Amino acid sequence: MTSLATGQRSLGDPSVRFPLWPPLTEGCPVTSTDDVAYPVEVDYAYDQVPDGFFAPGAAAARPRGHERWAPLLPPLRAPSLAEGGTPLLPLEDGVWVKDESRNPTWSHKDRLNRITVSAAVGVGAPGVVVASSGNHGASAAAYAARAGLPCTVLTSPDAPPAVDAFLRAYGATVLHVPAEDRWPMLRDLVERTGYHPVSNLTSAAHTGHGFGPEGYKTIAYEIHDELGALPRAVFVPTGYGEMLFGVWKGFAELVRLGYGERVPRLYACEPAAGGPLAAAVRDGVPAAHVPVGETAAYAIDCPVGGYRGVVALRESRGAALLVTDEELAGARAELARGGVWAELSAAAGLAGLRQLGRGVEGPVVCVSTSSGFKDRDLLPQ
Amino acid sequence: MTSLATGQRSLGDPSVRFPLWPPLTEGCPVTSTDDVAYPVEVDYAYDQVPDGFFAPGAAAARPRGHERWAPLLPPLRAPSLAEGGTPLLPLEDGVWVKDESRNPTWSHKDRLNRITVSAAVGVGAPGVVVASSGNHGASAAAYAARAGLPCTVLTSPDAPPAVDAFLRAYGATVLHVPAEDRWPMLRDLVERTGYHPVSNLTSAAHTGHGFGPEGYKTIAYEIHDELGALPRAVFVPTGYGEMLFGVWKGFAELVRLGYGERVPRLYACEPAAGGPLAAAVRDGVPAAHVPVGETAAYAIDCPVGGYRGVVALRESRGAALLVTDEELAGARAELARGGVWAELSAAAGLAGLRQLGRGVEGPVVCVSTSSGFKDRDLLPQ
Repeated sequence: MTSLATGQRSLGDPSVRFPLWPPLTEGCPVTSTDDVAYPVEVDYAYDQVPDGFFAPGAAAARPRGHERWAPLLPPLRAPSLAEGGTPLLPLEDGVWVKDESRNPTWSHKDRLNRITVSAAVGVGAPGVVVASSGNHGASAAAYAARAGLPCTVLTSPDAPPAVDAFLRAYGATVLHVPAEDRWPMLRDLVERTGYHPVSNLTSAAHTGHGFGPEGYKTIAYEIHDELGALPRAVFVPTGYGEMLFGVWKGFAELVRLGYGERVPRLYACEPAAGGPLAAAVRDGVPAAHVPVGETAAYAIDCPVGGYRGVVALRESRGAALLVTDEELAGARAELARGGVWAELSAAAGLAGLRQLGRGVEGPVVCVSTSSGFKDRDLLPQ
Repeated sequence: MTSLATGQRSLGDPSVRFPLWPPLTEGCPVTSTDDVAYPVEVDYAYDQVPDGFFAPGAAAARPRGHERWAPLLPPLRAPSLAEGGTPLLPLEDGVWVKDESRNPTWSHKDRLNRITVSAAVGVGAPGVVVASSGNHGASAAAYAARAGLPCTVLTSPDAPPAVDAFLRAYGATVLHVPAEDRWPMLRDLVERTGYHPVSNLTSAAHTGHGFGPEGYKTIAYEIHDELGALPRAVFVPTGYGEMLFGVWKGFAELVRLGYGERVPRLYACEPAAGGPLAAAVRDGVPAAHVPVGETAAYAIDCPVGGYRGVVALRESRGAALLVTDEELAGARAELARGGVWAELSAAAGLAGLRQLGRGVEGPVVCVSTSSGFKDRDLLPQ
């Protein structure tokens, strides 16, 4: 099945539309200002989605990986690593864990990078470039390798050797760059080499790649498929909010196509040491910058947020939760007792649920994003 | 669906049969001698397997995890972590990689431990005990945790902290014991505590748990399901030969039930520094002890083999291949270029195929057993 994508649309003003190609990698050029950058999203010919596409048993009969959902994704031009299809494990009555460590590079990021590397192939880019200190970079490197494209990863000077090995294993060129230089250097590399950027290029707010979050919609599709219904709430570890938005959008599409009454309430679970989305919601702004204190949740300790998160919480009647490292450690231990060894950041979903206490009506899903092997305190310095 | 298991049968003499319970954890008590210990296997009421059980599309309609194949497995009494269901990724024309790093604890061992911990639950054991320096122990710990059973892991004194963390994450009690003391201590612990052993107890040859290798049959079932046919050959990283035997048995069952003409040729890929199965085949004995030289393939550098491997190679007209660390490193690099970061030992399958050169007729499957994150040179000492 081929993609039904019809074009790109501004989140700043949905009436502002762009062709599908090229992907807008710096957000919306029309609505963005010096203060706020608005992302774009992908629109589809929803009236052409096959009847019964999300009906029980239909997905299982289709090929695995993003191909399973190809009509509602941007064109899949890069080869598959069989991303997604992760299990929904029961944790207790009415509570499920979506174990994203079961992806090709053992994190949710593979859902995004199959899409963004496909965009790189689609525009005929000579390579891929990404700024990342971990999962995102390794995932991009893996998909680039499989597509036969060179990949450059800008990572932090203090990246531990095992993360280095993880990146280099896939043949990526790894450059250690101080945090403040990473985005300017990324932009410079993109201009000089024509490499396709698969991480954020803007500083006014996070916009990331216009196609990327579409890959996270498959989390919503799979949850619906496994439960046979929509859950009441989903708790999502949140950094820049790309996954949060993708999960919301996937559920919104399901409702739009008649597979449910109401989008589940989404809870963005950010580290209490930072929390740009919580700040944006509190201040009623499209995106916020915040200082980030000490936290071991290195995968989601972002100083800058993006408008996608605000949209996802508003449209799902959700909320931003701030979880402490202590709450994260408690949730990680609880997941491990259930047989799931998660990265500390990955336990943010369950930590958020536990913070709200027993009052949350089920079924509830907590997304666990990555493997315990990724944690920095376990990796050689 | 419930298990069709009918009993246990000696590999030393298939006419020697035992009831299904209790599982024989020290091999066959009738045919084993001081020199050679013979394992047992599980027999089934094959005439009661539902029609079309392995037909195209049938498996996808059943629940995921070992439940998908429950009639041909021992009773599943421990809770699932959605083991198996790993992808078969194309590497080149006619060559596929079965990526076992996509399991719950990121190695093939989960297929075995779902079964052995189920056996522990089945006999009402108060806990589980395992001797292992890595993947096997962590997997047992995860399944024991999920089943609510305590788990003791006997591991080596030089186990790196990350492996320790991996084991302890699931709440296991980790004891550091010199290699020569591990099996006697395991036996002693079993006798004193009644804990169920999920690793080998015998020294005359490896027999392991009678039920365990049944879990590996699902690799053969899945390969058949994904290819829509039997492959011509499968290359299997081999330590004690439990997976090799399970894969063979799964294919043999498929042929028996009419889903193919001929069992694929199996290649056991052992480290050249050791290789007890290659020695057993060469010397025409049921199992061999060998000295083990320097090798980084720590997951498969076994000094003792078992009769299961001999059976699998004989019955599949296969062969034992010895691969050097250099060949392993080359195969690991090739897998990574295809987007799969494998543990060094996990690349033994592809290393074996490459050693044979281009003359192998496809379709061919190379099993990759575990994630690159497991490698010791990446873990803190």
